[in-house]
Amino acid sequence: MGKVLTVDTMNANVKKVEYAVRGPIVQRAVQIEKELKEGVKKPFNEVIKANIGDAHAMGQQPITFFRQVLALCSYPELLDDNKFPEDAKNRARRILKACGGSSIGTIDCVRQDVSRYIEHRDGGIACDPDNIYLTTGASDGIVTILKLLTTGEGRTRTGVMISIPQYPLYSAALAELGAVQINYYLNEEKCWSLDIDELQRSLEAAREHCRPRVLCIINPGNPTGQVQSRQCIEDVIRFAAKEHLFLMADEVYQDNVYAEGCAFHSFKKVLFEMGPKFSSTVELASFHSTSKCYMGECGFRGGYMEVINMDPEVKAQLTKLVSVRLCPPVPGQALMALVTNPPQPGEPSYAQFIAEKTATLNNLAQKAKMTEEILNTVPGIRCNPVQGAMYSFPRITLPERAIKDAKAKGQVPDMFYCMKLLEETGICLVPGSGFGQKEGTFHFRMTILPPTDKLQTMLRKLKEFHQQFTQQYS
Amino acid sequence: MGKVLTVDTMNANVKKVEYAVRGPIVQRAVQIEKELKEGVKKPFNEVIKANIGDAHAMGQQPITFFRQVLALCSYPELLDDNKFPEDAKNRARRILKACGGSSIGTIDCVRQDVSRYIEHRDGGIACDPDNIYLTTGASDGIVTILKLLTTGEGRTRTGVMISIPQYPLYSAALAELGAVQINYYLNEEKCWSLDIDELQRSLEAAREHCRPRVLCIINPGNPTGQVQSRQCIEDVIRFAAKEHLFLMADEVYQDNVYAEGCAFHSFKKVLFEMGPKFSSTVELASFHSTSKCYMGECGFRGGYMEVINMDPEVKAQLTKLVSVRLCPPVPGQALMALVTNPPQPGEPSYAQFIAEKTATLNNLAQKAKMTEEILNTVPGIRCNPVQGAMYSFPRITLPERAIKDAKAKGQVPDMFYCMKLLEETGICLVPGSGFGQKEGTFHFRMTILPPTDKLQTMLRKLKEFHQQFTQQYS
Repeated sequence: MGKVLTVDTMNANVKKVEYAVRGPIVQRAVQIEKELKEGVKKPFNEVIKANIGDAHAMGQQPITFFRQVLALCSYPELLDDNKFPEDAKNRARRILKACGGSSIGTIDCVRQDVSRYIEHRDGGIACDPDNIYLTTGASDGIVTILKLLTTGEGRTRTGVMISIPQYPLYSAALAELGAVQINYYLNEEKCWSLDIDELQRSLEAAREHCRPRVLCIINPGNPTGQVQSRQCIEDVIRFAAKEHLFLMADEVYQDNVYAEGCAFHSFKKVLFEMGPKFSSTVELASFHSTSKCYMGECGFRGGYMEVINMDPEVKAQLTKLVSVRLCPPVPGQALMALVTNPPQPGEPSYAQFIAEKTATLNNLAQKAKMTEEILNTVPGIRCNPVQGAMYSFPRITLPERAIKDAKAKGQVPDMFYCMKLLEETGICLVPGSGFGQKEGTFHFRMTILPPTDKLQTMLRKLKEFHQQFTQQYS
Repeated sequence: MGKVLTVDTMNANVKKVEYAVRGPIVQRAVQIEKELKEGVKKPFNEVIKANIGDAHAMGQQPITFFRQVLALCSYPELLDDNKFPEDAKNRARRILKACGGSSIGTIDCVRQDVSRYIEHRDGGIACDPDNIYLTTGASDGIVTILKLLTTGEGRTRTGVMISIPQYPLYSAALAELGAVQINYYLNEEKCWSLDIDELQRSLEAAREHCRPRVLCIINPGNPTGQVQSRQCIEDVIRFAAKEHLFLMADEVYQDNVYAEGCAFHSFKKVLFEMGPKFSSTVELASFHSTSKCYMGECGFRGGYMEVINMDPEVKAQLTKLVSVRLCPPVPGQALMALVTNPPQPGEPSYAQFIAEKTATLNNLAQKAKMTEEILNTVPGIRCNPVQGAMYSFPRITLPERAIKDAKAKGQVPDMFYCMKLLEETGICLVPGSGFGQKEGTFHFRMTILPPTDKLQTMLRKLKEFHQQFTQQYS
């Protein structure tokens, strides 16, 4: 008798899941690192990982105040230590006290902090803590809301509109849940902007074979780095209202805005500024996390979602559903409390906090600019401005012969390109095909996270590689 | 136009999910706490929560060494502080170093620590770190394995055998995944032991309407507190082999064994001691977490699973699936490294670590005994020995008239009982119906976690309540 569980007898939806960010390129990169350690000769000394948005792994320093409070919460005897500033101690005492009284999984004061943060961010528009659900990173919240929305079979199956290129969590979650993925394409020629006509086109095409119910937006964009204009957000909300779609706004890069003339506008704020016709009807879930922005604390898996205009009975179902999985990690919850309630003017840690936050964001802005500029000096690479988030998603021209060779090897051409880049230079990127792209175009996603000097070296090596590659296959 | 997402148009599987541990009783308990704060007069001063297995929430102290290392990892500047012992600093340095080099989500040294821990626990039986998957608490691992195993439609739908009474994570996960729940009843008369004939009966009945593929065991038992004998585990393994079932062993209470003559035997160890006929064929996933035992660190959401004899292609699918959700919380991973690699003899923290661990486990053993003894003095309550885990699950006799009154109110009788108990005494328990029980029998689950004096008071109040209740409805 064979095994109970084989690829032939396993959940077919799981098999359909794809996740390029940790795909074969990364596996090979890990292998190469091992080989380097074992003394295998390579044309480079180290693997440079520009594949995932983990800022600290690339050397970004955590915010001191956050880590002080977390240490105090972990080991409260440090509350007697005069090395720690009073405001850090006060935050720790407050969190510890709230934990002691908690029986419902999430720490109540965190939801209050989150709700005040949102109100402040959105110029005073009210935020009810009962609309806040703490999550294990944003991914957890996104999957949970998609799960609620997934129903039907065949032509009544829930369809979910996602941007292409997309962050592959979305396609993976939809595959796992058995929902229908509806692709709308961002406009690369217009700096990856979102086009309402394209939304309309993809919606109408999808209605032939499923029931579209959800529209997902990532702003600032991953992997494409664009920042949506206020006008665009208004148009999207109008579209969702007209077409009766549930809106999901992935806003985890809300502090990561670099380009002049760009600003972050939350979907919540724009929705409420559009007046009651929209603010009292359009259903919206927005997501944030501790993993990006100036914090970069991926490892703590902190996050929240705010739900607007959600049916109260559905909210009760949501509360039940998240209870089964018990609480999100408490250190992540504590961190979210600090992110949403950081040191204030007059508090002892304020100056250092602002200095660290500003330095981190300025450094990212500088690297965003540098990435765009250097990439655009390479013939055959065209890079849109990195307006926000942590990634560039440049288009690459691949010679016909490279495309043929890739196909002969059974590889997608940009996978072929990225694998060769890794083998020859140690640079680890993710092929554009992992995020989706227009048929016949090729891209890669590169984070802007390596330290400035390393990023510069990397971009120089990439330039040389691309020129050689083009020559070799022309 | 109505809302996009309503209870009528939401995922029907989610609606079927039930989770009694955080149900109406707990919601009412939270409300009562608020009322007490607001000065509402009650016949009691505080709500005593004996509903969830959160040891720290009930006053159990965390292990000093664990918290020291976590503080050092959170705020590495403390590495210069001579208040911290050297072994704590060494552990922190090792974890921090491993984090720096990590690109694959989980910290590699944690899986190595886990694997050495398992080898030591199981008397030297080899454990391959590649069979270890770190998880966000045990729940996460359990749901993930169930997800892999869920396939089919109608009569080919995957059936999963779970004990009744069960921990409601299982029924909730099966409802959400749309798998078929197959109930096998534990034998209350024989101290909640597992009976192979009953497994056979439930399996055969289930084969009429689904495809049974999985057998889940919780040992030590939740909510029933029994500890399985080595013989019983052998029989279960033989049964799984004969009936071609994938075994899932929930072993999160592996250190919580109190009764004389009882010992924890891991399914892995027994499997390998049964020889290659079994050890090379039976597919097994076992689960552990940082939340129970002497650690009680629920908030960190640390856990691991070990998979044995899993098809390599399925393992690749599993690795992909967990990658999409990114890594388990890093503080939880670090904690798992400490639990599986605690201070050793000769290290400065060893004596304190052993003293704290022993004191916690002894205290639990004492409370387990006390709970059983006091409950069994109450006419109409019959409590099996609490051999392990953290719960008693006593059977209660309810007067006919109480059962009638409950039904008239649309309440399950033991819910009616527990709600009344809460209102009159402030004691918060979970009705047996939330875990499943034989038709016509009634129980409640009560944790043994309140501090000894509070537990004693609680048991006394419970006794008085039960006597009054019986009188009132007779």
